Amino acid sequence: MDAMGIAARRASQSLATVDSERRDRALRSAAASLREHRGDILEANAIDMSEAMARGLSPPKRDRLMLDTARVESMASSLEAIADLPDPLGRVLAEWERPNGLQIQRVAVPLGVIGIIYESRPNVSSDAAGLCIKSGNAVILRGGSESFHSNHAIHACLKTGLEAAGIDTDAVQMVPTTDRAAVGYLLSSMGDSIDVVVPRGGKNLIRRVQDEARVPVIGHLEGICHVYLHEAADTEMARQIVVNAKMRRTGVCGAAETVLVDRGAAQRLLPVVIAALQDAGCEVRGDETVRSMVAGVAAVAEQDWSTEYLDAIVSIRVVADIEAAIEHIGQYGSGHTESIVTGDDDAAGHFFRNVDSAILMQNASTQFADGGEFGMGAEIGIATGRIHARGPVGAEQLTSYKYIVRGNGQVRP
Amino acid sequence: MDAMGIAARRASQSLATVDSERRDRALRSAAASLREHRGDILEANAIDMSEAMARGLSPPKRDRLMLDTARVESMASSLEAIADLPDPLGRVLAEWERPNGLQIQRVAVPLGVIGIIYESRPNVSSDAAGLCIKSGNAVILRGGSESFHSNHAIHACLKTGLEAAGIDTDAVQMVPTTDRAAVGYLLSSMGDSIDVVVPRGGKNLIRRVQDEARVPVIGHLEGICHVYLHEAADTEMARQIVVNAKMRRTGVCGAAETVLVDRGAAQRLLPVVIAALQDAGCEVRGDETVRSMVAGVAAVAEQDWSTEYLDAIVSIRVVADIEAAIEHIGQYGSGHTESIVTGDDDAAGHFFRNVDSAILMQNASTQFADGGEFGMGAEIGIATGRIHARGPVGAEQLTSYKYIVRGNGQVRP
Repeated sequence: MDAMGIAARRASQSLATVDSERRDRALRSAAASLREHRGDILEANAIDMSEAMARGLSPPKRDRLMLDTARVESMASSLEAIADLPDPLGRVLAEWERPNGLQIQRVAVPLGVIGIIYESRPNVSSDAAGLCIKSGNAVILRGGSESFHSNHAIHACLKTGLEAAGIDTDAVQMVPTTDRAAVGYLLSSMGDSIDVVVPRGGKNLIRRVQDEARVPVIGHLEGICHVYLHEAADTEMARQIVVNAKMRRTGVCGAAETVLVDRGAAQRLLPVVIAALQDAGCEVRGDETVRSMVAGVAAVAEQDWSTEYLDAIVSIRVVADIEAAIEHIGQYGSGHTESIVTGDDDAAGHFFRNVDSAILMQNASTQFADGGEFGMGAEIGIATGRIHARGPVGAEQLTSYKYIVRGNGQVRP
Repeated sequence: MDAMGIAARRASQSLATVDSERRDRALRSAAASLREHRGDILEANAIDMSEAMARGLSPPKRDRLMLDTARVESMASSLEAIADLPDPLGRVLAEWERPNGLQIQRVAVPLGVIGIIYESRPNVSSDAAGLCIKSGNAVILRGGSESFHSNHAIHACLKTGLEAAGIDTDAVQMVPTTDRAAVGYLLSSMGDSIDVVVPRGGKNLIRRVQDEARVPVIGHLEGICHVYLHEAADTEMARQIVVNAKMRRTGVCGAAETVLVDRGAAQRLLPVVIAALQDAGCEVRGDETVRSMVAGVAAVAEQDWSTEYLDAIVSIRVVADIEAAIEHIGQYGSGHTESIVTGDDDAAGHFFRNVDSAILMQNASTQFADGGEFGMGAEIGIATGRIHARGPVGAEQLTSYKYIVRGNGQVRP
């Protein structure tokens, strides 16, 4: 592991000075290599899948592990899409001149070495490495043990891409073991060679990373996202947004888990919204007021408000007003994404100022909480912490900066 | 400590919505209170100073602990200067529109709760709290035990300022104990209530913070800063910059510790530069080539290259060319600040691209590495890490951001 760290640091130093044309060429060559070696990748994945069956991996986990022709093609085209993004490096983030004539620029540079720890989703190997190459960072990948063979087949293609562009192949390394202790060592003892760790996966993985990490972490804990139907919400818009935010995909972190409804609009909105949710196959749990207005609603328990279902279940509460909605979100939310549905822009402004989440929306589905939907091309995850990056983490968020100061002989008095 | 953390979180939530006029009023009122209670502060400081004498504190440490009328006035005027800065909150950092009509803004918000751990320098209590109030953050201060009484007198003035502006006084709290275990608890067990810790002090303090912290840290380890005299350096400019970078103040982190000189210009530059350093009272240590060219130079040892003297000592090395200079800085530097002296802008550009430090200068003294000199008004320190902030950390660097997304009913396909 130490040798990997040293190699990664060295590779990051040379990668930092590789121009954007060569980094993009590495991405396109890796995409071509993924297509060319699709057979090898699917064979490796078949080994992982049969071991996963033997070990009794749950169907949703097997689905995430499984690769087919379309999924390999999607990994390749993602790398090409990342290559098409503007170069995140060298951007002049700010510049100004001092009264003494010093000219100061703040310029984007790579973070350095990034550790990515993720579950058994082989596509993450390719997506995450792609974003790191794009942003000039070396990366150490550590995927879930069930995806071991798939990851190594994909890693070989990524290395082929780096070689084709004349980039040190240590820029993308993969921990060559399924030993869980390797993760602990990476988190606790590699502070000199890893600048930041990005965990990507469920609550248990992220909690473990945050507990053990002695290196900086960019991650999100969970997405308990709210849709708040303000009294000035349009009925049809409320219906569409709630159903989409909850049911488009229930397993993503931007899926809504709780709907809050203003008391003054509950009689108008709830019957329509709940019928639509139930038609879409969603189990509805409501507080007493909700149940007094609409039949067929289960009782909500206190713990529902702080549960990330990631499933076709929603909790609904009637609130006195916008202040009560803001208070509910402050108490139970996870700081991820919340949407207010309202025709009243002043109410939306109040909501934006007083709710402290990474992403706040007006009249839009929380399922837009995604780097691709934000126009970032791709994302490595959604950060709910407040340090360095918040919200979708794309190539731009994987950069740091340095100051360039130009003078003509200035000394400090 | 837990109660302080809970109170700080609550205060940060209310402070985040306080407008800039009231935050600035708190700063000006605190400045007035410092002036009004100057007598109390000096009395408290006299107690600290006499205890420091009895405990045999070193003269430089006693100097940093000591307050007088001028230093209290300087604390007050610093708070006023911070109040005069533009509001770092609410700035629209970026905005764009998506093809589906969603309008996205990235808007600056406070970080939340900041822990500041510092040595026995009472002015830091006021400067650091001032920057935190300006940027809408609650702060937990933990100063060195020798400054206990001074800090509490200053804290009382800061609270008076908050009260005058109607801000929850828990926004600025001070750990009410000199127990070292309090620091450990703050670093290891308050991750839920502290968003980031900023250590301010010497190497031992910062090393302890980085070793023990389970919360994010913004800090700098040391400043081994270099001045590189390129072969196209003007002799007189080289002389002035080297003397200023080394000798203006030797105890600051931006002071130069090593001078690198191109072999091709060594005969021209070294006699002038070394004579000027010696005239200014600096001990010069040089490699064999330096000693073969100039008399009265001590021999440098390997460990000199990685020593932050913080004293009137300089190490000088003759290098083959710019590549050798870049390699030396990569091997021995601490990523803080380096300056190249050259009339050749292409050489400067090459140096900027290939040296990985927070601040890179051309033809200017490294002692400009300072938030005030950068025009940031004040700084809480210089960050040498790569996460979140790098270089001078001012009010703007104590912010995070959130996304505001405005739609008109968009749902995700």
